Amino acid sequence: MTIDTARMVQMANAIRALSMDAVQAANSGHPGMPMGMADAATVLWSEYLRHDPKAPDWADRDRFVLSAGHGSMLIYSLLHLAGYEQPKIEDIRNFRQIGSPCAGHPENFLLPGVECTTGPLGQGLAMAVGMAIAERHLNSAFGNALVDHKTWVIAGDGCLMEGINHEAIGIAGHLKLGRMNVLWDDNNITIDGSTDLSTSEDIKARYEATGWHVTTCNGHDFDDIRRALDEAQADERPSLIACKTVIGKGAPTKQGTSATHGAPLGDEEIAAAREVLGWDAKAFEIPEQVYADWRAKNADHAKARDEWQDRLNASGQRKEFERRMAGDLPESFSLDNYIQKLMAEPQKVATRKASEMALAQINGKLTETIGGSADLTGSNNTKAGGIGPLTADDYSGRYIYYGIREFGMAAAMNGMALHGGVIPYGGTFLVFTDYCRAAIRLSALQQTRAIYVMTHDSIGLGEDGPTHQPIEHVQSLRMIPNLLVMRPADVVETAECWEIALREKDRPTVLALTRQGLPQLRNAPDETDMCSKGAYRLKKSSNAHKVTLVASGSEVHVALECAERLEKEGIGASVVSIVCTQLFDEQSADYRADMIPANTLRVSVEAGTTFGWERYTGTDGLNIGIDRFGASAPAGDLFKKFGLTADDIVPQIMNKLNG
Amino acid sequence: MTIDTARMVQMANAIRALSMDAVQAANSGHPGMPMGMADAATVLWSEYLRHDPKAPDWADRDRFVLSAGHGSMLIYSLLHLAGYEQPKIEDIRNFRQIGSPCAGHPENFLLPGVECTTGPLGQGLAMAVGMAIAERHLNSAFGNALVDHKTWVIAGDGCLMEGINHEAIGIAGHLKLGRMNVLWDDNNITIDGSTDLSTSEDIKARYEATGWHVTTCNGHDFDDIRRALDEAQADERPSLIACKTVIGKGAPTKQGTSATHGAPLGDEEIAAAREVLGWDAKAFEIPEQVYADWRAKNADHAKARDEWQDRLNASGQRKEFERRMAGDLPESFSLDNYIQKLMAEPQKVATRKASEMALAQINGKLTETIGGSADLTGSNNTKAGGIGPLTADDYSGRYIYYGIREFGMAAAMNGMALHGGVIPYGGTFLVFTDYCRAAIRLSALQQTRAIYVMTHDSIGLGEDGPTHQPIEHVQSLRMIPNLLVMRPADVVETAECWEIALREKDRPTVLALTRQGLPQLRNAPDETDMCSKGAYRLKKSSNAHKVTLVASGSEVHVALECAERLEKEGIGASVVSIVCTQLFDEQSADYRADMIPANTLRVSVEAGTTFGWERYTGTDGLNIGIDRFGASAPAGDLFKKFGLTADDIVPQIMNKLNG
Repeated sequence: MTIDTARMVQMANAIRALSMDAVQAANSGHPGMPMGMADAATVLWSEYLRHDPKAPDWADRDRFVLSAGHGSMLIYSLLHLAGYEQPKIEDIRNFRQIGSPCAGHPENFLLPGVECTTGPLGQGLAMAVGMAIAERHLNSAFGNALVDHKTWVIAGDGCLMEGINHEAIGIAGHLKLGRMNVLWDDNNITIDGSTDLSTSEDIKARYEATGWHVTTCNGHDFDDIRRALDEAQADERPSLIACKTVIGKGAPTKQGTSATHGAPLGDEEIAAAREVLGWDAKAFEIPEQVYADWRAKNADHAKARDEWQDRLNASGQRKEFERRMAGDLPESFSLDNYIQKLMAEPQKVATRKASEMALAQINGKLTETIGGSADLTGSNNTKAGGIGPLTADDYSGRYIYYGIREFGMAAAMNGMALHGGVIPYGGTFLVFTDYCRAAIRLSALQQTRAIYVMTHDSIGLGEDGPTHQPIEHVQSLRMIPNLLVMRPADVVETAECWEIALREKDRPTVLALTRQGLPQLRNAPDETDMCSKGAYRLKKSSNAHKVTLVASGSEVHVALECAERLEKEGIGASVVSIVCTQLFDEQSADYRADMIPANTLRVSVEAGTTFGWERYTGTDGLNIGIDRFGASAPAGDLFKKFGLTADDIVPQIMNKLNG
Repeated sequence: MTIDTARMVQMANAIRALSMDAVQAANSGHPGMPMGMADAATVLWSEYLRHDPKAPDWADRDRFVLSAGHGSMLIYSLLHLAGYEQPKIEDIRNFRQIGSPCAGHPENFLLPGVECTTGPLGQGLAMAVGMAIAERHLNSAFGNALVDHKTWVIAGDGCLMEGINHEAIGIAGHLKLGRMNVLWDDNNITIDGSTDLSTSEDIKARYEATGWHVTTCNGHDFDDIRRALDEAQADERPSLIACKTVIGKGAPTKQGTSATHGAPLGDEEIAAAREVLGWDAKAFEIPEQVYADWRAKNADHAKARDEWQDRLNASGQRKEFERRMAGDLPESFSLDNYIQKLMAEPQKVATRKASEMALAQINGKLTETIGGSADLTGSNNTKAGGIGPLTADDYSGRYIYYGIREFGMAAAMNGMALHGGVIPYGGTFLVFTDYCRAAIRLSALQQTRAIYVMTHDSIGLGEDGPTHQPIEHVQSLRMIPNLLVMRPADVVETAECWEIALREKDRPTVLALTRQGLPQLRNAPDETDMCSKGAYRLKKSSNAHKVTLVASGSEVHVALECAERLEKEGIGASVVSIVCTQLFDEQSADYRADMIPANTLRVSVEAGTTFGWERYTGTDGLNIGIDRFGASAPAGDLFKKFGLTADDIVPQIMNKLNG
């Protein structure tokens, strides 16, 4: 059944009407992009997209990412018109109002069918790369009958101008993700005006240079759009489809200008647009024929999904496939035996090495982990457990050489986690969280299980100097809502942290790991699962309790030495390993007060900024840390230089006690 | 005078010997890159570079940036061999040891001749773009006789793979920065191994697509290097020179592999390399002939600088030129009159608008400011005072349309500030500091005067929702050493903050500014210069002092309303505007204790994370803020939703007082 051009025009105009009316009602938003891309989106969604509006979580659906998230009314219109349960027309009427699932930018946690949160430019496309990787990887595991879908992206000039675009398309081109197709809203307009103001780039040539197939179409000509999409689907490389469009298409006096980009059109212009478009329905009313045309293929969609379900049921892989897609770990999964072995044979290793040891266990027990590093494999110790590279020739591999692309890696990890069926982890130096911080934030906002293996976590890295030494990083990451930051102090804590991170289905984790070796702290077989409350008492006070030392990671060992010396002086001192402040903050007030009693001198020790530690020590405590940039020298020299030794700290504690 | 090839080889081998010996002595570092690029660097430095080793701060010197900063032994070798006062051979012998100016990565604040701090990949090249912009801009102001130099970069595969490379070369290509030339160490090796592991990109085609001239040379053939450099200099576009090199060239068994990248070669390999290279001098000894050849042109260099100095003296522009290059503001510069006008006519404006008003004054009084925005000109209010665009056709303009390139913008600002003669400022949304945080950190580390105009600083931006609403950003930026974060509360504070930022020659500033309008707080003509201590008492307690409210920016107004209501209940409450925590922390203990007395209930109010506020309120205070992601709705609704109104806060204060 085909729908003739006149009716296709009205299907597209429904997007235009909803978009301009919703933005006007909210007196806020971006009408230009949805109006400009309405025609291309209509062809894509009504003729190409594999989905079932009645089952937005169907595992084998095509993934659609609106990378230009400010044009959120486009996806809200599409979901509504295509017959998804949400958004209702009232939700669209309440666009950008409190409680509406139609938020300013599309949020994956508010609306089924929104695959990811977009708005921070460039990241949508980069997450789509991760989705396309996950698709091919799962295809290699479960076969064409169960996993055989595409990843579609609509992106704007901003997405292509951002640096992350270079990283993302570099990964996609290298991995030959041919089932990924990007529709570029090529309208020559950004917020500041014409793209000529800021760029002279031949975007198509750049994409070709990066291993992409490129084609162009008139974004307002249905047949030409179809021709381009067919071409893109046929090519084995990822495709960029440059859709030449007029921004705000349909707004008679403003179309083609930045005036339509990020502001309501105004009642007068909207009325005139209705004339031009031949759209006489009232605001937020959609003619029945338009709904019917939009939903004409929904029975076919449901049938395709039914057939897929039959294949799944018949496959013998249903249980495992559903487990993977649900994100559940196998019931048998546990690191207990491994941890018991550690208890029996204590060892001194860097926590990055401890992470590698844990990963050797994890990657052996789980099939769903996909590791990688931004060109620091040997330093991050991320390749473990015998996993091989995931390449264009072999998508079944479970290790990605991301190249020197921290931001692209982090966004791809988000995309993989959002796609489901895999658990991504990836590494770089902790200081370079600054390069991918915007993606880590989106991990947290989107509630994805991305696990960041961030090594070289302090001045303990030594000679590389201040550009490579985290100072503010651990604390500043702890501030991001819904993100777990774990800084384990030995091989056992590292294993416990890994297990916690894997079991957190809706929270990302940053593991901050040392370059330098750390002795094992615990070896009692029954002293396990200590990290899950975020902090625990590693050493009780022997004398009357006067001092509580709170430390994380490598500084736990410094704190223990301080405590030992204090005890020798008859001063009771306990040591608390605060491996994850977020988990600790979630414990009961009693537990927290018991761990860090207010009637003791509370001392924090961490080789980073002291800012924020007053939360645990009060303003009458002592905060030992580093409030300047680091320096280049061997690690031992630096710990001395910055006063992070028992020799330096104990006298300060004594002064404070006597003061 | 020309030096024959055999002696050129030894000049290059001197770099190789110093590099492998220094890395071996430190047992840490990266010998591969200096050894691979030794030949190209020798040609560049001995035949092309315009500089005077006796005057590393000569204003009209060529700028040389080692973007691949891990190869730091290359620049240390070059500076030493070329006859700079530093580094001495002892400094090189102490490579990566405490106190040596030869740090792990090159630091601009340790060693004259190091133009910028590099190591975080991609940023060196991106800063060079800013240097090249500053050069052309100053050329337009002072003419060819005074400003006529080039910008040279040595970059590795990592620099080109990073996302920021796309942004940086996009700016350079668009602005046709033809005097910028990048030598790419094209050795096909990264830390993880062959570049084939992670990339399939045609880099040369990508650069050509972005408006660059591209040429290739054999990086070990002096004549071919000269041919390529000549070609690059002749072309009016910025140039990429792909130097085909062998990483670790000269190390007989390891060259051409990633084994030479980031680890010492070992004594045996070094001995073998000496054989291969025909280098029989001992470690850290350089034959006199090699020194003589390296310094053969130094008399010519000194003469060129003398002639330039004569031109400067004769130009009638000396005083102004020297003032600009010294970074001093004109003695007459002041915003006093403007602030007095504000006092006479109080007004309610958003602080982003207040910033625009201040800039209208500043850009009129100063000639050295260069503004810009990452495609948010109308939202950041950064174009003010009648300044016109800086374009490829007119470098005299003082406003840069950076495009959607936050990271590239921030790095270019660093480059401009490091070049000297200009004061860069640039804007985006505060939440997108995450996109350029790595460059903001380098502003602070490098002690540059870059001024970040970061608007839409809280949930007060309203409908755009959580992706656009800063939560952790203000606090997390406050943790970066040597960075001033200012969050003014009205039009007067905004002007004061701008003046402070401009007068801070060695510190960058982030201005966090509102989207929404804020009433003016002060109008007494003598109540000026209140922001310089970082915090000041805006309202004294009328009744007996019980409560101290500490707030910044838009929440100062909420705090004032709380205080008013408390006073009505007979509870004395003061309000402190903490506009810059860093400046406040630098004040005397007495001043700080007077502002926020510990014997009062201390209450912080800021529309962001509460993490860290205990520093000012103690753990027995009250921290009002937002410890989750924001939401999409009109701003007023959000302040209610998140409890940031007097209605919500006052009862909590009463409870606490009565509790």
